[in-house]
Amino acid sequence: MTSLEALSHERCLELLRSQYLGRIGFVIDGQPQILPVNYAMLGSDVVFWTGAGSKLSAVDQNQAVAFEIDGATTISHDGWSVLVVGAAHEIVDNKTREVVKALSLRPWVAGARDHVVRITGQRISGRRISHNCSLTRRAS
Amino acid sequence: MTSLEALSHERCLELLRSQYLGRIGFVIDGQPQILPVNYAMLGSDVVFWTGAGSKLSAVDQNQAVAFEIDGATTISHDGWSVLVVGAAHEIVDNKTREVVKALSLRPWVAGARDHVVRITGQRISGRRISHNCSLTRRAS
Repeated sequence: MTSLEALSHERCLELLRSQYLGRIGFVIDGQPQILPVNYAMLGSDVVFWTGAGSKLSAVDQNQAVAFEIDGATTISHDGWSVLVVGAAHEIVDNKTREVVKALSLRPWVAGARDHVVRITGQRISGRRISHNCSLTRRAS
Repeated sequence: MTSLEALSHERCLELLRSQYLGRIGFVIDGQPQILPVNYAMLGSDVVFWTGAGSKLSAVDQNQAVAFEIDGATTISHDGWSVLVVGAAHEIVDNKTREVVKALSLRPWVAGARDHVVRITGQRISGRRISHNCSLTRRAS
């Protein structure tokens, strides 16, 4: 039996704080995109470094973005995922940039990655899929 | 030094065939979403099982979707990702459904996951990030 368990807000934040690689989803010219980013947490917000590419364009357009992390075991295919949907904006004030610089965080790609983006989650949700347990099954 | 190498179409397909867990990105009510899916390849197309939830709604709306896989090493943070952007549609003809049923593929969540979705990539791209090598650096 497979079960889908909704994760609590606190558990979602714990998982977000335990990982370093996530994926940002956004729309450019009507086309959805997903790109990996190395990230860190600044309080309850996701922060990452980026260059002057498509990720920053999405932020400039002030659109909602999605951010996702997940994990799965190879053998049992048990898994979990956390989804953050919210507004993204570039951090431009030097004080906050210094705080981010002090985090253990490096960009997915080095080079001219001098923009730091902050995603404030308007909705943070997570779920865990377990096989062979008796949790309540829910529709996804 | 960090380098960003574009992956060939063939290498992207090889990587797509070597994995089983990806993420689908789509837009619902103007909000981007990213959800993990177990998938398989049917030729050059991505296929996965799903229920009557948000992923299927995105397909019903005939919108472009994104599909992403990635991998990274914990120590060096070297990594790669493949992005498929294209049209998604539900497979309804029984012959093709039987072909998909014969693949080694099970849904991310079991239960009433009796819809099979096929993503035909209009654009398949991939990149590899390597540290301490001499590949040509490109903007992302």
